[in-house]
This record gives sequence, structure tokens and C-alpha cells, in this order.
Amino acid sequence: MQTVNVAVMGHGVVGSGVVEVLLSHEKNIAAKVKNEINVKYILDLRDFPGLDYSERFIKDFDLILKDESVKVVVEVMGGIHPAYEYVKACLEAGKSVCTSNKELVAAHGAELLKIAGEKNVNFLFEASVGGGIPVLRPIAQCLSANDLYEVFGILNGTTNFILTKMIRENMAFEDALALAQQLGYAERNPSADVDGHDACRKICILASLCFGKHVYPEQVRTEGITKITLADVEYADIAGYVIKLIGYSKLLEDGKITADVYPALVPKNNQLAGVDDVFNAVMVRGDAVGDVLFYGRGAGKLPTASAVVADVIDCVKHLNARKYLSWEDGSKDYVVDSKTVKTRLYVRAYVDDILNAKTEVFSVISDAEFIVTGEDKNEVAFLTPVGVEAELKEKITSLKQLKNTSVLHVLD
Amino acid sequence: MQTVNVAVMGHGVVGSGVVEVLLSHEKNIAAKVKNEINVKYILDLRDFPGLDYSERFIKDFDLILKDESVKVVVEVMGGIHPAYEYVKACLEAGKSVCTSNKELVAAHGAELLKIAGEKNVNFLFEASVGGGIPVLRPIAQCLSANDLYEVFGILNGTTNFILTKMIRENMAFEDALALAQQLGYAERNPSADVDGHDACRKICILASLCFGKHVYPEQVRTEGITKITLADVEYADIAGYVIKLIGYSKLLEDGKITADVYPALVPKNNQLAGVDDVFNAVMVRGDAVGDVLFYGRGAGKLPTASAVVADVIDCVKHLNARKYLSWEDGSKDYVVDSKTVKTRLYVRAYVDDILNAKTEVFSVISDAEFIVTGEDKNEVAFLTPVGVEAELKEKITSLKQLKNTSVLHVLD
Repeated sequence: MQTVNVAVMGHGVVGSGVVEVLLSHEKNIAAKVKNEINVKYILDLRDFPGLDYSERFIKDFDLILKDESVKVVVEVMGGIHPAYEYVKACLEAGKSVCTSNKELVAAHGAELLKIAGEKNVNFLFEASVGGGIPVLRPIAQCLSANDLYEVFGILNGTTNFILTKMIRENMAFEDALALAQQLGYAERNPSADVDGHDACRKICILASLCFGKHVYPEQVRTEGITKITLADVEYADIAGYVIKLIGYSKLLEDGKITADVYPALVPKNNQLAGVDDVFNAVMVRGDAVGDVLFYGRGAGKLPTASAVVADVIDCVKHLNARKYLSWEDGSKDYVVDSKTVKTRLYVRAYVDDILNAKTEVFSVISDAEFIVTGEDKNEVAFLTPVGVEAELKEKITSLKQLKNTSVLHVLD
Repeated sequence: MQTVNVAVMGHGVVGSGVVEVLLSHEKNIAAKVKNEINVKYILDLRDFPGLDYSERFIKDFDLILKDESVKVVVEVMGGIHPAYEYVKACLEAGKSVCTSNKELVAAHGAELLKIAGEKNVNFLFEASVGGGIPVLRPIAQCLSANDLYEVFGILNGTTNFILTKMIRENMAFEDALALAQQLGYAERNPSADVDGHDACRKICILASLCFGKHVYPEQVRTEGITKITLADVEYADIAGYVIKLIGYSKLLEDGKITADVYPALVPKNNQLAGVDDVFNAVMVRGDAVGDVLFYGRGAGKLPTASAVVADVIDCVKHLNARKYLSWEDGSKDYVVDSKTVKTRLYVRAYVDDILNAKTEVFSVISDAEFIVTGEDKNEVAFLTPVGVEAELKEKITSLKQLKNTSVLHVLD
């Protein structure tokens, strides 16, 4: 049995989890890998005295880069800098890299995959989407005989927790957010989650993998959940839907794609509707296989760490490059403006007179489906038929009787 | 670009699907694999005149075995003989084999994996569990950093279709079975499905992979759905459950396992409860990752074929043995008698006098939970507390007031 040296860059939540999983499962992993995995260095600027493995900490990245015995490097620092420079340098030095850093992969995935390919090493990032849930590898390997045409899912556990509290316990958005913060699910500054940026990075990675060309975060129209009200939750419920924050990407007939993050009404009989709390789920549609769904904990120290360690195990088993993960660079016009494609919308608005408002809506959108609440609220909610988004929105804007109009997508 | 020759043994539903997917996705697959995949032979005793590829059919297995240019063989004949002899001969001749044949893998998986390992070729069978759903490879690769301790799921689409009709449409078992046969979901002799044998083979494969030692079908206590009545469906519904045919296996503290196939009451908030019609789902539990669920079409020509072809693609990319799929041979005492472990049971029975019967039940099982129907049916249904199965069943048998007693497991 040989020993393979590994370095872990970053000893935060995920990083400490990676070290913990590697050390606590040492024997079982060695049995599977037929090699011992030795955590030689842990790179972190902070000191961690008093740990069993305190002597392995270093502060100088060059020690890792120049140590030829280190074959696999784990990047769990997060953020783009210096993660990007470090990962690039490691790959160029012929070391495989495993990361959970969705921001890095969404911004530089195509470039880093290309370098890995040229150097015949691995760049793996299973943990960057869906935490511990196997998603990227099964899509790349098990669905490889399919032409994939749609990928979407609940990609952010924090917002799903908040929406679940709103749906199941009638809790207002602000209260649900405060609870999520109290439980450690949401940051003090919750923007990355509630404004959809985290889900945006993940749909970039999924779309890049499924459709073969890199999608960059700035190409994804991204909308968070901050404007969702309990009224929306109630109307959706009456109409047979639940509201979920969805990352969505679809291959169009001309080979281009759409990519969006938005809160959407999901039919209750859709598998995603039952995905609650901090759980995530990714749905992939292929021409041969139909619908496939992957479900589990999308975040958390140990689930995410276990996905990173699985990548490390894969690297140690196959020190030369695995060939399954790769995509080309993208281009500016590859992602089309979602407003130009067909969709269905949900509309809620305040009105002075419900009857007049309904008459106006029907005169402009003749087959609107009103959601009946049985109460007189000076508020209406309805679903549009399927149409080109820009045209639907133009019609909605033209409705003079609607005030403070709120519009959501419907996933059918 | 090189050409890799492949042979397909069997041109039934799955076999013709495999050829169809390989031919219709030829270009996309070649782009992924960087090799062309050429279907050189199709082995079938029947004639298939008039097809685009009729000239590729052969009736003599030796042509495949002796052709050194054939690197990958697809076995989709089904059944044990001659599939076992053919697969073994191919592996021994240094050819990789991909199969969808669960019966073969459940009966001879450990032996065939061992031969593949010795010959440095692949023996892959992703399609044998869950049809097109990625299950085995993600478990083996993506969850490799976990100690797995439980695996269970809805593993048979036909019985799930029948139960869904009973649950959603109040259709009697016989009528639902007749409909399934009419739609082509069930065979004329439906025993392999409705008696649980198909699910049994799949839980054998899952348990072997998750826990590392081969489990043979005769070690799995197997019970089908033929005795489930609409009354059971209704009682389960009132108590907050749906009835599903479950394949279940669990690692015990002493390193042994249990393995069962049975109809069970599944809580409505469990992800499996929403898995309807012919869909399958597999839940895996690991110490780091928690719950992970894989969902999709568990059968059907193209879904299953797409999983077989993904294995072929994997073989062509890695002509030398992949190292992730393997387990040891099992042993007689590895699977313990499920009656000796703890469970919870559902009981339904006819009674002459409901009050007397309840009094008797409470005197023997003091914390039984009766399911109240609001109707006087001369029938009772209740849930037991958690206890050792044999002890619970002994108590139930001792109840003199219960007649035609029916007992099901409860999945909590």
C-alpha cells in the first residue's frame, strides 16, 4: 500500500469537515482506495492550536506548490481570490484539485478544466452543486448516452428553509429569515442566498455540464425571494402550487440556452414541491431517460465534506486525468434573453374594484385563470396562459386597474 | 479517432433500445468518447430482416468471443442461462461486459466482479437497478467517503403502478393489475413483479454494493403485494401513510445486515411517499451525507438502454478496469433473520365485537395505536409500538378476537 499526500487549503466549515472525514474514515477509505491518504498540509492564515493535527498547518502556499509528493490539493477557501490563482498554479504544476467552491467554478470552470486536461490531472468539484448529493458525476457519466435538454432545481438550502417556513407555518419572510440566521443556515448578510446569487452559480455549473458550454453568472437572470409575501404563498396553495426558488436552464432548438434563477410556482405533484427545509434537489431531463431527480442535503459541513473527499478518493484511484468532466468555453450570445421565450406567469396586484379589474384583465388576457380566495381583499391573483414572456409582461403592464403588481414564473 | 467494436447479446426490448441509442446518438457519443463506437455484432437466435442494421445479426456466440477486436460486450438477454456462461467467457477473454440483467448480477455478481478485476476489465451493470436512474455509480463513487448504513427504496415500477392506482383511484388490486398488463407494464405471468422477486434481486445488488459483501436472493425475505386490499390503503391513508413495496437493507452493529422486500406503510412526509406510477426511487443513508435519494423511471426500453449505453461509454473511455465497483463474496450467516430485529407493524383484522377486540389488544399491546375510521365495519386496524418483530408477531398471534389478521411493516 502506497501513501498519497494531500493538501487542504482552507480550514473553515468545509475544510475542517474534509480533514475530519479523511481522518475518521482513514481505514475504510484506505481499504477502498488501496492507498493511504495522508493529509500532509493544511493551509490557513489562522492558527489552530490544540488540535490532534495542529502540526500540519502551514501559512505558505508555496510549500504545497513546490512539494512534488503532494498529488492532490483540496481547495475549500471559498471566494475567487486567491483561490483561483492557487488552483491554477496547482493544476499547472501537475496536481489534481478538488474544490467545493461554486463561485470559482462558475467564474473560471472552463479555463481550469482546460488546464487540467492539458496537464492530464483532475479538476473535480462535485461538492460545488448540491453539497453532499451526487449530481455532477452521475450527470456526466450515467446520463452520457442522453441528449439532455433541461436542468433545474432547488439549489439553495437557506432560501428553501425560509420558503418552507412561510408555506408550512405561515411565517412572514422576515421572521423566517431571522430564524434561519439564528439556526446558522443564513449569514448575517443574507444577500448571497436570498438574492439568488448562490443558486445562480450552481445553475451556471449545471448548465455548463449538461449542455457543454460554459455559462457565466452575469449571463443568468437572477431574482431572489425577498418580495415573496404570505399572500403569494396562499394564492399559490389555492391554485395547487408551492413557491420555490428555482435555478432553471433549457436547451433551445438553435443550440442556445436560457438560464434563470427565480421564485416560481411549482405544481404540488412535481417532485420538487415536496423538497422542504434545507434539502436540495436537481431535476435533469434527457431524451432517453426522461426525468431524473437527485435529492439530499445541499449544504452543511459533513455532507459537503463527504462529497469533496469522494472526489479526493477518485483522484487517488485515478492519478491520471479522468475524462468525464469537461465543457467548452461559452460565448456572449450563447445564453439568450429569457424574455424572448415562452413561459407562464402568476400575477398578484392590488385593485380598487375587483369586478372592474377582472373585466380589464379578461379584455387583455382572455384566458387568464383567476385564483378565487373567497374573501374580498381588494387584491387579485391570476395565472396567464403560456406566451412569450416579454409579450405577457407588456400586457400585464398595460392593465391600468392593477397596482403594486407582483409577477412570478410558473413551472409546469 | 479510433473505432471500438462492441457486441450486443440479445435484441429484445432493452437490446433493441441499446442499438437504437448507440446508432441515433452516434455523433454526440463519439464527441464525448473521442472514439467511435461500432456495433459489430448483435447476437439473437431470431431473425430481424428489414432493419437498417440487419446484416449485423449473428446466431453464434463464438464469433464474439473469438473476435479480439470486440472490446466491450453488452449482455441484455436476461435470465441466468446462457447469460452467465457467456458473460463469464467474455470477461475471461479480456472483454469488458455491461449488463442490465439483475437476475444475473444478484446470483453471480461477486464471482463475475472478481474475474473482471483479475482480467483488468470492467463488469458494469448500472441499468440493473433503477433502470435509467443513476444509482450504483453515484453510490460507489460519490458517497465513497461515507460509511453507509441503510439503503431502501421503491425498486419495481409495475407494483408501484398498481399500488398508485389503488391509492389514488381506489382501484382494486386485480383491476389495477389487469390495467398494468394492458399497458404493457406487467407480464402475462406477473409473479416476478407482484411477488417481489424483481425487487428482491435489486435490493441484493444495492445491499452488496453499499455494505461490501454479496447478498443472494435466497437470503432476502421476500413478500409481494397480492394480499394488499383497498381497506389497507384506506387505513394507511387515515393514519398518514401510503403503502409501497419496499426493498430494505440495513447494516447492524455487528457488521451483519438485514435484507427484506415487503409492502410497508410509508409516512406521507417521506420522499418515497410521493414516488408514483412506474417511477422508482432509492434512498441511501450515510454517516456524513445523511439522506440521499435518486428518482426516475425504473424501467422502460429507452431509460434502461441509456443506462447500459452510459456503461458502454465508460468502458470505451477506460478500456482498463475502473476500480470503483466491487464487493466481496458473502456468507450464509451474513444476512440475519429480520424477525430478530426491531420494527413496527400495522395490523388489520376482522372482529366479532370491536370493543372486546380493542380491550384484548390493549391488554396484550398496551400502547397500540388504533386507526379510527368512523365506521362500524367489524374490522380493526392498529399500529404497534417498536419492538422485536418475532415478539410483536407472537403477541398478535395470541389475540383470540382477531380473525384473518393481516400484518404489514411500517417504515418510520
